[in-house]
Amino acid sequence: MPMMPVTDSMFLMVETREHPMHVGGLQLFRKPDGAGEDYLRELRRSLLESDNMRSVFRRRPSRPVNTVGNLHWSTETDLELDYHFRHSALPQPGRIRELLELASRWHSTLLDRHRPLWEFHLIEGLRDGRFAMYSKIHHSLMDGISAVRHMQGTLSDDPADLDCPPPWGSRGETGRSRSNRAPSSLFDAAGKTFGQLTGIAPAAAKVAREAFREHRLTLPMQAPRTMLNVPIGGARRFAAQSWPLERVRAIATAAGTSRNDVVLAMCAGALRDYLIEQSALPDAPLVAMVPVSLRRRDAQEATGNNLGALLCNLATDLPDPADRLAGISASMSNGKKLFSQLSPLQTLLLSGINVAALGVSPIPGVVSNTRPPFNLVISNVPGPRTQMYWNGAALDGIYPASVLLDGQALNITLTSNGDNLDFGITGCRRSVPHLQRILTHLDTALAELEGATGLR
Amino acid sequence: MPMMPVTDSMFLMVETREHPMHVGGLQLFRKPDGAGEDYLRELRRSLLESDNMRSVFRRRPSRPVNTVGNLHWSTETDLELDYHFRHSALPQPGRIRELLELASRWHSTLLDRHRPLWEFHLIEGLRDGRFAMYSKIHHSLMDGISAVRHMQGTLSDDPADLDCPPPWGSRGETGRSRSNRAPSSLFDAAGKTFGQLTGIAPAAAKVAREAFREHRLTLPMQAPRTMLNVPIGGARRFAAQSWPLERVRAIATAAGTSRNDVVLAMCAGALRDYLIEQSALPDAPLVAMVPVSLRRRDAQEATGNNLGALLCNLATDLPDPADRLAGISASMSNGKKLFSQLSPLQTLLLSGINVAALGVSPIPGVVSNTRPPFNLVISNVPGPRTQMYWNGAALDGIYPASVLLDGQALNITLTSNGDNLDFGITGCRRSVPHLQRILTHLDTALAELEGATGLR
Repeated sequence: MPMMPVTDSMFLMVETREHPMHVGGLQLFRKPDGAGEDYLRELRRSLLESDNMRSVFRRRPSRPVNTVGNLHWSTETDLELDYHFRHSALPQPGRIRELLELASRWHSTLLDRHRPLWEFHLIEGLRDGRFAMYSKIHHSLMDGISAVRHMQGTLSDDPADLDCPPPWGSRGETGRSRSNRAPSSLFDAAGKTFGQLTGIAPAAAKVAREAFREHRLTLPMQAPRTMLNVPIGGARRFAAQSWPLERVRAIATAAGTSRNDVVLAMCAGALRDYLIEQSALPDAPLVAMVPVSLRRRDAQEATGNNLGALLCNLATDLPDPADRLAGISASMSNGKKLFSQLSPLQTLLLSGINVAALGVSPIPGVVSNTRPPFNLVISNVPGPRTQMYWNGAALDGIYPASVLLDGQALNITLTSNGDNLDFGITGCRRSVPHLQRILTHLDTALAELEGATGLR
Repeated sequence: MPMMPVTDSMFLMVETREHPMHVGGLQLFRKPDGAGEDYLRELRRSLLESDNMRSVFRRRPSRPVNTVGNLHWSTETDLELDYHFRHSALPQPGRIRELLELASRWHSTLLDRHRPLWEFHLIEGLRDGRFAMYSKIHHSLMDGISAVRHMQGTLSDDPADLDCPPPWGSRGETGRSRSNRAPSSLFDAAGKTFGQLTGIAPAAAKVAREAFREHRLTLPMQAPRTMLNVPIGGARRFAAQSWPLERVRAIATAAGTSRNDVVLAMCAGALRDYLIEQSALPDAPLVAMVPVSLRRRDAQEATGNNLGALLCNLATDLPDPADRLAGISASMSNGKKLFSQLSPLQTLLLSGINVAALGVSPIPGVVSNTRPPFNLVISNVPGPRTQMYWNGAALDGIYPASVLLDGQALNITLTSNGDNLDFGITGCRRSVPHLQRILTHLDTALAELEGATGLR
């Protein structure tokens, strides 16, 4: 019975009914030509018969109840696949709206700790003839980035490849061991750092303090208190939409910024409009926590420390979209420059300090009485570069759904997918009313950025 | 902010992710003539606009987190009806099987404590053209019997009555006060007694002990340990089916027993067959806890003490169905005779003792190391006597879904509904495999009882 690493158990320990700790996502597929009425049922039946399963999907907590102390993983020998892999349908009229409503509900409920901590839902009933898959994987098994990478591993760039593994399987060897898991997630890093700072290696805290002193690193800027930084309830709202990557690329080229800066400016514009609509725009600019890849070009090997947590000034106080883009770009450059001067350990520590304040949010009163370390996470996760297929069905969209925490009632995570950027927006259903309007505001913000850079 | 009675708060205190404390039910309706494609959506839309809401459905815990101590009810002023009243659909092929699978999933997840503790789901996609409604109400708001009674109050015996209230509303005055709630549930009684025995009135325990001594009351018989009396997980399986009341009535007349005895013999036969199939039939007979009405014919006014918890010997050790029915009938007669000799307080106390052992099941190890007080609850809840309608839609079935506890992995609750008996079977998905086979065994058991009484 292997001991659970603190980076895994942390997500089990802090989970409550208000704070489900699973990542999820919605994938949209076009059925292959000639698919009949029974297509989805037949697909599900054939996948239920597959014995291809990654070992991580057989893992369950040996003690399902929250306990302080050491947790262990058990291997489920009698897995009820029918329970984990579900078939669902949309009510009339079967629009994306009904799909998002359903995904919102699923994202709100806890996984059963007496079983391996995952579910996949195959969804029929979209009136445009497509089908969807919602996935829900506990953060103790896989973080959001690993989940996207895992799903990619089950797809093919060949529409004629009808031998794709099930969503819980893998190509190549089955039963891949944990050590093959790329430990590249921000939350993994944060978890490790948090652990180091609080107990495993108290000396690390001293190193961090010295790093700050020697390098005169700026401490995290102060984020304003907003309606997004409140205690949250258990219910979620999920919204999703795609935009052409080409439109973002054109703005980046015209403005001389990175594509990620343009994405952040889209989000900043949308958040500004949304907060104005809610009469809740703070005077000070919003601060986003942005996970960024920091791998150096000269790095000889991939390490776990190549992901950093940057804090980005979203310049939401500026009414002009061009000014906002410039401000965001400057903020991101400064942050990256800072990181580039650090050793891998120092990078990890700085990232950890940028997010460590999250670790104390489960303590009652902390969220109400302290300023947030940042206002929201905006995460840009690399997805497939070309059109992908799953047993002949073309992947139209891949929208990540994230974990929320007390004080962090909104999350924007996007994935690149072929020619598109697929945005998934996860919010607390109570604290973030009319979440879906953020989609409209994102669209407006993109058009305004095109206007500001002379593209329309 | 009214203080929550212990009978309410108990269900919030003991709830965990393994032990959701909501009652539920599935109702099946035939659409009225002329119902079009949009029927359900239109129905839902019109109900969403209704402002008829019983005050109990606006009540939420003022502190959503489990805390030892006093809980209070708050009134939700900003209720998001769209969240509580949902529209869902069945996947192909839209059989009852798909409906039960969906109800099983819903019955497995916790209600959001940041909102009033209820959900209603309107379900389309049954291939026979009917529609369904699944309801989920926290036990702290309403017990199973009250829930059935409440639902009845929203129906009409007139198919032309298109003015039925929504599932959360009531006829007559809205905002009915709590004091109008009939305190007739077994669990209410158990809760009160448990409270009295443990703290509110320690003197009552002494009274109970003396009642036992003076009246030489038998202590609860010892139930054998079975596969049904184990710690449970969070996932549920729900099965449901109707049988004609006339078949049960004919057996009761032929055998000279009560109808409820025949129902218990049906259950006993089905449990025996199921346990034989699972190679898990104990030598000793199973013991069922059977809530029964004990109101005396000469009672001047209705009191809260008119419901008792009888323990019934199910005679599952006997292979002959006629012997089983005779044994069950004798066991029930003895129990009722015993109760008839008691004062209302003593009745309440004996009922309490019969079920009080349930109160300690959340303590780790108790279920594994002690014998169960009984093997399962079999509850026969009075429902409508005639064909009922909801805004013109004929009610075809009303199947109760119940709460499970550690050590109580199976529950059978049935409702009379016009000419039918509607059985709802709730089980722990892990501990009670192939739950739906119990339906087949019930059918067999009914036919065997007909054979044994010369009816076929």
